[in-house]
Amino acid sequence: MNQKESEFLTFLKEQKAYEEALSLIQWDLRTKAPKKGFEQRSEVIGVLSQKLHNFSTSDKMKQFIDALKGNTENEMIQKAVEECEEEYERNRKIPVQEYKQFVTLRSKSETIWQEAREKNDFKLLQPYLEKLVEYNIKFAEYWGYEKNIYDALLHNYEPGITTEILDEVFPSLRDSLAELVDQINNASVKPDPSILQHHFSKEKQESFSLEILKRMGYDFDAGRLDQTIHPFAISINTNDVRVTTRYDENDFRMAVFGTIHEGGHALYEQNISQDLAQTPLASGTSMGIHESQSLFWENFIARSEAFWENHFDLFKQIAPTPFEPIPFDEFYRAINEVKPSLIRIEADELTYSLHIMIRYELEKALINREIAVKDLPDLWNQKMNDYLGITPPTDKEGVLQDIHWSAGDFGYFPSYALGYMYAAQFNHSLKKQMNIDDRIRSGNFKEIKQWLNQNIHQFGKMKKPLQLLNDVTGESLNSKYLVDYLTKKYTAIYKL
Amino acid sequence: MNQKESEFLTFLKEQKAYEEALSLIQWDLRTKAPKKGFEQRSEVIGVLSQKLHNFSTSDKMKQFIDALKGNTENEMIQKAVEECEEEYERNRKIPVQEYKQFVTLRSKSETIWQEAREKNDFKLLQPYLEKLVEYNIKFAEYWGYEKNIYDALLHNYEPGITTEILDEVFPSLRDSLAELVDQINNASVKPDPSILQHHFSKEKQESFSLEILKRMGYDFDAGRLDQTIHPFAISINTNDVRVTTRYDENDFRMAVFGTIHEGGHALYEQNISQDLAQTPLASGTSMGIHESQSLFWENFIARSEAFWENHFDLFKQIAPTPFEPIPFDEFYRAINEVKPSLIRIEADELTYSLHIMIRYELEKALINREIAVKDLPDLWNQKMNDYLGITPPTDKEGVLQDIHWSAGDFGYFPSYALGYMYAAQFNHSLKKQMNIDDRIRSGNFKEIKQWLNQNIHQFGKMKKPLQLLNDVTGESLNSKYLVDYLTKKYTAIYKL
Repeated sequence: MNQKESEFLTFLKEQKAYEEALSLIQWDLRTKAPKKGFEQRSEVIGVLSQKLHNFSTSDKMKQFIDALKGNTENEMIQKAVEECEEEYERNRKIPVQEYKQFVTLRSKSETIWQEAREKNDFKLLQPYLEKLVEYNIKFAEYWGYEKNIYDALLHNYEPGITTEILDEVFPSLRDSLAELVDQINNASVKPDPSILQHHFSKEKQESFSLEILKRMGYDFDAGRLDQTIHPFAISINTNDVRVTTRYDENDFRMAVFGTIHEGGHALYEQNISQDLAQTPLASGTSMGIHESQSLFWENFIARSEAFWENHFDLFKQIAPTPFEPIPFDEFYRAINEVKPSLIRIEADELTYSLHIMIRYELEKALINREIAVKDLPDLWNQKMNDYLGITPPTDKEGVLQDIHWSAGDFGYFPSYALGYMYAAQFNHSLKKQMNIDDRIRSGNFKEIKQWLNQNIHQFGKMKKPLQLLNDVTGESLNSKYLVDYLTKKYTAIYKL
Repeated sequence: MNQKESEFLTFLKEQKAYEEALSLIQWDLRTKAPKKGFEQRSEVIGVLSQKLHNFSTSDKMKQFIDALKGNTENEMIQKAVEECEEEYERNRKIPVQEYKQFVTLRSKSETIWQEAREKNDFKLLQPYLEKLVEYNIKFAEYWGYEKNIYDALLHNYEPGITTEILDEVFPSLRDSLAELVDQINNASVKPDPSILQHHFSKEKQESFSLEILKRMGYDFDAGRLDQTIHPFAISINTNDVRVTTRYDENDFRMAVFGTIHEGGHALYEQNISQDLAQTPLASGTSMGIHESQSLFWENFIARSEAFWENHFDLFKQIAPTPFEPIPFDEFYRAINEVKPSLIRIEADELTYSLHIMIRYELEKALINREIAVKDLPDLWNQKMNDYLGITPPTDKEGVLQDIHWSAGDFGYFPSYALGYMYAAQFNHSLKKQMNIDDRIRSGNFKEIKQWLNQNIHQFGKMKKPLQLLNDVTGESLNSKYLVDYLTKKYTAIYKL
C-alpha cells in the first residue's frame, strides 16, 4: 500500500468514527435514553451529521478520489474510492439550500403524517406529499438517469436495479402471488391461528428467542438483544451489531420471528470481512440484499417444517402449559397462516410482496408524473382490491399507513420485495450444495451460516447486489424460485 | 446578548456536542457494550477527544477569550469565558509531544498496575510511578503556582484549595478521627453486622433502591439506573443523568447505599440551571463538592436513625423473611459499624478520611521531592499503623490498592475528604433552616432537595467551591462540623 492509499484509509477511519458515534446515539435513543434527554441529543446528531456530510463532500475527499480512482492496484481501495465518489457526487449535485429546505419539509411532513393518521384525513398530508414528490423529481434530475427518472431514486437503495428490470419481474410475481392467494382464499381446509394465542411471558419468550439467536450463530460477544417498540438491527461497528425485539405476551410470533428476522440482518453485519472494517465497504451492500438475509432466516428457516421438527420440543419446554396439547401439524400450519390483510407490516410471507407491488406501481407513476398525489387514496384502494381482494375501510388503514413517503423516501419500497426474491434465489443455490432440511432438522445451522458468510456476508459492499446475486446463483434476478417455493409450501399447508 | 456573545455560545454548543457523544460512549462501554466492540470504539474515543482538545486550544477559542473576557455584561458569558481560558491555558502550557508521551506512559502504567497487584510486586510498578511523578512535577511547573508546587495539581480537581488550606484542616481532622476510632476499638458494646448478611435477591434490592431514588427526587424521565461492576453517575446532558449500581446478593448495603450515593451525584447534575446547558458551566463545580452531594445523601440522610425510622417497614416488606426479626436498634447500629480496614473503598464513613490522609501526605511529599517512590510501601504501612492501628500484610492490600497514581492522577485524593467536610458544613447550615430529621422521618425529602437545588445545584460551575461554601454556610472550610457530627453519632452508637 502506498502512502496516498494509507492516508486515504486514515481519512476514512476518521469519517467512520463519526458514523459510529451517530449509530450508538441512534441505538441509545431507541432503546435506553430517557425522554427528556432527547432534545439536546438531537443537537448532537445535527453537529455530528454535519461533520459527516462535510467529510463526504470535502475537497480532501475529492483529492483522494482524483488521485486514487483507477490508479490503485488494491481492489478494496478501488471499491472504497468508488463508494466515496458516488456519495460525493450524490451530495454535491444537490444545491445545499435546496437540500436544507427538503430536510425541513420532511421533518414537518412526518409530524403532519402522524396527525393525518390520527384524524384519518389524507387531505392534511396531501400538500406536503406533493412538495416531497417534486423534490424527489428535482433530485432525480440532478442525479441523472438513463431511461426512467425513477431509476435515479431506486439507485439510492438498490444500485443496479432499474425500472426496466422491475417491470420485467414484478408483474409476473404479482400475478402468481395473487392467484395463489385466490386459491388459498377458496381453500376448504384452513389453519387455526387462535391455537397460538395463549399468554406467554416476556421472560420466557426472551429465553426462547435468545436460544435461537445463539443457535443461528449470532455472536453475543459482538452484540446484544434489547427491547423496543419498533424492532431493528444496527451495526455500530462490525464487532458490535445489536438487535432489538418486541414482545406481545398474547402472541409469541411477534418476538420469536421478529428476533430471528433481526438476527438475520445482524449475522450479515457481524460477518463482513474485518479487512473492510472502518471503510464505507463495511456494510450490507443494499437494502434488498439485507432483507434477503433477514427473510431467509425468518421464513425459509424458522417458518419451515424442518425447523419446528427440531425446535418444537424446546418450544414446549419453555412455553406455558396451554401450548402442550397442540399437535405439531396444527402448530406448523398456524404459524404459516395466509390471510389478505390491510397493513403491510402485519402481512404474511405470501401476501407481503403484493403490498409492495401497490406501493411500487404508485410511486413509480408519481415520479413519472403519470398520476397525482390527490388521487393516491382511490388508486391505493383499487389496487388493494385487485391484488388482495380487500378494500381498506379508511385511509388510515390504506394510503396513510406507512411513513416512507411522508419522510420523503421514494424508491425504497421495492427493496422489500427484492429481498424475498433474492432470498429464494440464494435458498435454491444453497440447496444445490447441501441438504439444508437435514441440517435444520438437526438444529445445526453452522454450515448454513458458513455458506452465507462465505458467499454473501464477507463481501460487504465489495460487490453490488446484482453482481453478488450472479456470483452466488449464476442467474440474474427472477421471481421463479420465490413463486416455486411459495407454491410448494402453501399447496401443502392448504392442501390445494 | 451581542453578536460576539451569541457566536461564542454557538461555538460552545458545538464543543459540548462532542463531549455529549463521548459521555454516551463512556456510559455504553461501562454498561452495555459487547466486549468485541471495544477495540474499534477506542478509536472513536480517540478521534472525538482529539476534536474536543482542538476546540479548547483553537485560535478561534483564543479570539473569543480575548474579545469577551472582562468585556461582557452577561455574568454567565463571563464565567464561561473564564472556564475556557483556564482550559486553554492548561492545555497550551504543556508541549504537545510531552503530553502525548505522558498519555502513553499512563496507559502502560495502568496495565502494569494490574500485573503488579496480581503478583503483589510493587517493584514492577515503581519505575512507572517514578516517571509519572516526574511528569506531574514538570506539568505543575508549566502550570505554575504561588506557594507549593502541589497546589498546581490540586487546582485541577478543587480550584481554590491549596496545600496551605489542607495543612490547616487535615491534621486536626486526622487526629480527631484517629482518636474516635481508638475509642471505638476499645468500646465494650459493638454492633453485629452479621445480622445483615442474608440472601436478598438482586430484583428485590433493585426495587427498594429504585423506590428510594424516586423518593429522593431523582427524575427517571431524565435518567435511568443500570448495573455495573464499578458504580458511577454520569451526566450525558443535564436532562440525561444516569446512575449505575452493583448488587451483592449477600450484602444489600452495597447496592442500597451505593445507589443512594450515585443518586446524590445525579441530583446535582440533574438540577443545574437549564440556562447553563450546553456551556462548560453545566457541570458540578468540583470533585469535592460533587462528593459532598453523594455523601450527604448516603450518610447524613440514608445512614441516619431518622431515615430508617421511616423506611424500615418498607425495607422489611421488600426484604426476605430472615430480616424480619431484626430489631430496629440493632439494624441501625449494624449499618453503621466502624471498623478499621485495609481497603479505602470498603471503609466506613468514619475511617474513610483517614485513608485519604495517608494518600494526601504521601503524594504531597512525592511532588515536593521529600520522599522517593521506592519508599512508598513502607511509608504507607507505617501511616496505616499510626492512623488506623492496622498494618497491611501485603502491598496489594496497601500501596497497590488504588489505580489513581498509576493513572498519573496526583492531587485528586484530597477531594474525597473535602467532600465529607463540605457535606457536614452544608448539613449544619441546612439544619439551621429546617428540622431535617422531622422531614427525613416522614420520608418527605422535597424541601431538602429544594434547598440543595437552590443553594448548591443550580449554580453548576458559576461558583467556585470555596465561594459556594461561603455563600451557603457563611464560613470557610473547616472540619469542626464533620467531627461534631461523627462524634455525636458514633458516641451514641458505641455508647462511648
